[in-house]
Amino acid sequence: MLDFRPVFLVVGILLTTLAVGMIIPAAADAVAGHPEWQVFAASAGVTMFVGVAMALASRAGGTSFTVRQAFVMTTLSWIAITVFAALPFAFSELDMSFTDAFFEAMSGITTTGSTVITGLDSAPPGILLWRALLQWLGGIGIIVMAIAVMPMLRVGGMQLFRVEASEQSEKVMPRAAQIATAIGVIYLGLTVLWAGAYWVAGMSGFEAMVHSMTTIATGGFSTSDASLGHFASVSIDAIATAGMLVGGLPFLLYLRTVQGDFRVLFRDTQVRSFFAIVAVVVITSAAWLWLDNGLDPLQAIRYAAFNVASVITGTGYSTADYGLWGSFAVPIFFFLMFIGGCAGSTTCGIKVFRFQVLYAAAHTQIQHLLQPHGVFIPYYNRRPIPDDVIVSVLSFFFVFGLTFALLAMGLGILGLDFLTAVSSAATAISNVGPGLGPVVGPAGNFQSLPDAAKWLLAAGMLLGRLELFTVIVLFTRSFWRG
Amino acid sequence: MLDFRPVFLVVGILLTTLAVGMIIPAAADAVAGHPEWQVFAASAGVTMFVGVAMALASRAGGTSFTVRQAFVMTTLSWIAITVFAALPFAFSELDMSFTDAFFEAMSGITTTGSTVITGLDSAPPGILLWRALLQWLGGIGIIVMAIAVMPMLRVGGMQLFRVEASEQSEKVMPRAAQIATAIGVIYLGLTVLWAGAYWVAGMSGFEAMVHSMTTIATGGFSTSDASLGHFASVSIDAIATAGMLVGGLPFLLYLRTVQGDFRVLFRDTQVRSFFAIVAVVVITSAAWLWLDNGLDPLQAIRYAAFNVASVITGTGYSTADYGLWGSFAVPIFFFLMFIGGCAGSTTCGIKVFRFQVLYAAAHTQIQHLLQPHGVFIPYYNRRPIPDDVIVSVLSFFFVFGLTFALLAMGLGILGLDFLTAVSSAATAISNVGPGLGPVVGPAGNFQSLPDAAKWLLAAGMLLGRLELFTVIVLFTRSFWRG
Repeated sequence: MLDFRPVFLVVGILLTTLAVGMIIPAAADAVAGHPEWQVFAASAGVTMFVGVAMALASRAGGTSFTVRQAFVMTTLSWIAITVFAALPFAFSELDMSFTDAFFEAMSGITTTGSTVITGLDSAPPGILLWRALLQWLGGIGIIVMAIAVMPMLRVGGMQLFRVEASEQSEKVMPRAAQIATAIGVIYLGLTVLWAGAYWVAGMSGFEAMVHSMTTIATGGFSTSDASLGHFASVSIDAIATAGMLVGGLPFLLYLRTVQGDFRVLFRDTQVRSFFAIVAVVVITSAAWLWLDNGLDPLQAIRYAAFNVASVITGTGYSTADYGLWGSFAVPIFFFLMFIGGCAGSTTCGIKVFRFQVLYAAAHTQIQHLLQPHGVFIPYYNRRPIPDDVIVSVLSFFFVFGLTFALLAMGLGILGLDFLTAVSSAATAISNVGPGLGPVVGPAGNFQSLPDAAKWLLAAGMLLGRLELFTVIVLFTRSFWRG
Repeated sequence: MLDFRPVFLVVGILLTTLAVGMIIPAAADAVAGHPEWQVFAASAGVTMFVGVAMALASRAGGTSFTVRQAFVMTTLSWIAITVFAALPFAFSELDMSFTDAFFEAMSGITTTGSTVITGLDSAPPGILLWRALLQWLGGIGIIVMAIAVMPMLRVGGMQLFRVEASEQSEKVMPRAAQIATAIGVIYLGLTVLWAGAYWVAGMSGFEAMVHSMTTIATGGFSTSDASLGHFASVSIDAIATAGMLVGGLPFLLYLRTVQGDFRVLFRDTQVRSFFAIVAVVVITSAAWLWLDNGLDPLQAIRYAAFNVASVITGTGYSTADYGLWGSFAVPIFFFLMFIGGCAGSTTCGIKVFRFQVLYAAAHTQIQHLLQPHGVFIPYYNRRPIPDDVIVSVLSFFFVFGLTFALLAMGLGILGLDFLTAVSSAATAISNVGPGLGPVVGPAGNFQSLPDAAKWLLAAGMLLGRLELFTVIVLFTRSFWRG
């Protein structure tokens, strides 16, 4: 039998932290004289009680983890946090069903950004702040997991980043906790920086804070139903575009930059490929918008850059409905959703390093076809890729495709039309936010979907966020027999 | 420099054979008193001349192949055959552009079954016979290639079937040519059998012949714009359903069955998985048609079985527009297109054995996550799968997905709407035939697409038919440098 005590101890501590986080929107509502502060205070009380009780009851179990405990801990902590993070939504004056509250909380904590709420512009500040805070916590949470937990679990090729992390730690930082703390400080610093920029560009202090949190977290929740389109400002679009791209880079490299290695970001092959992909798609889309839709060149670049950055990083802000740019845009934005940013960033999706490994594997495969007895070794970042990483990444791609297909078919069975079904499935599993088409597109909202579809999509978000295998292993016989 | 002479020798011989094949529709038109026989006679003359000239000019080159020559030979022969097979369409009274003629010929020879011709019901018999003959030749062509060429080229995991083929040959049949001849006889026998069945069920002799050829070849060309829906016959639907499934099984196993090993088909894991997938989708779809669309249970099974068999084997016959069955059907039939039948059959798509290898690899991956130091070996057909096969198959899946995405984006740029673009890309690369939606769906036609889209789709058909890598290697630097 699996010893759940170390798992419950961690979950208890995380819930206690979440309860402390709830005090922030409570304070915001209280300052604004809004009675909703009581909702947050009550939710904080319940969450705190459960969290402390779990932690205390499990404290005898020790804090060292087996691999199986680590898998259970990871999935269970994200689900538990989502359940309790949903409480303020469920109890708020927005009068949301628990399904809607859970969907919104999952969309927040996984930094997806799909929403079921309309009327954001007149929503109480506490709720807006809570949504942003969930994405912000989810963003730093996934970075820390990508550095400290995922390489140990060796999920989907993440072991590729174990070597670098441990080399790093031997040289400069002795322990993962210290790295995590340092990265947390950088994350906070970037958030403050972007909040300042948004404020200078004309947002109110509150709007600047909310948007800077959901920009750096590549989350995409906004204070307006019209998303960033509400501000209709060139400088805000530019700040957001830069911020989303910053959120899509590996945060470990920021740490090394701060430590004095200024060229590390430019040398990293994942970062270079990420920018190469962004550049190609932005230039193609801008050329189309200029030549075919008749925008002037600067406008075309502005819209193309903003929307490409928003979709590839899975942020999901919108200023325009690219579904209306014509047949050209829909397939491109559809496939762009799957790409994602860099490993160790706040983004989701398949991620750039996996495409690099996939490409290297396919290229080696072709050389091997031509010279069956030759020995060809695929490289990543100037190092040979170990065989087990190649099979990990290739299997990840297959399981990603399969999960996407099952999700889309499930949504079709629930009555969603083809474009809504496939784009919702893609946007959920890649944690993007909006889908495509009139229902769930950038101008739409997930409110009208049937409840079962919302649960399916929430499951898709969790699967995508935790790199699929982390969740799937829990449903295998070997896991519980082992 | 590559010695092209052995390549041209084979292409010359194939073109000469094609020219002989053109005499059949010429004879059919002559017997029917139709002046179109001259078109076929002239096309036969041109093709014969070029074929014989190529063969004679290249006969000094010998007949042994290097791997690189085999790659060039494979791709070049399919393209050359398509170009000359397009002549009768281009010269016929149907007055087709060369783009349309090439599209139709490629769709025929790759057993895809997408068509740009309307008015089939009143078309001259020679043209209808020519379309069927192309699919029939393409069907046996791909079986022979899957047995004799593909395992040697080791494309996409096809080396998995090399062992079995050579074991087989040591025991019973000494040479590949003999195996190919024996399978050709079986292929002819099945075609005659199905022609008889169609005739008994009420088709004319001509219709029975055309449809039996395009059934066993899982091609899907018909004598009517309404496809098999024209006959509105339960028994014809049943015969077609059985025939398409027969065309989706590995023909090598039929040979072993004929040689006396009657259980080989039931023991084969690929065959069992193929039928398991068909059964699950048929039962699900039939249940839906019964419970939600109100068909009576037998009608529901008839429609579900026919359409699932038609799409999974990539035949592409239709009796009903499943696009109108509601939101349920579209995503399911979309993803069904990618599956395909068994390796060594006339079907295309990713193929069942690859999904088995992918599943085995993913399952091993999960066990490996739970016990990082354990040794887990994926199995196929009760034998361990060699590492290079796993990487081959996984890379194939990635390149398949990438090619599909690029094709769909290209079609979007050319102005096709999302459903038309993604389903056309899928139906081309998987050699299915009809796409989804009002334009290219079972009730539609590829005629209205822009020329550039037709060329893209023809390229997709060729890529899919030749297992992608066979064509892609020709576009790499290492191929021409090596």
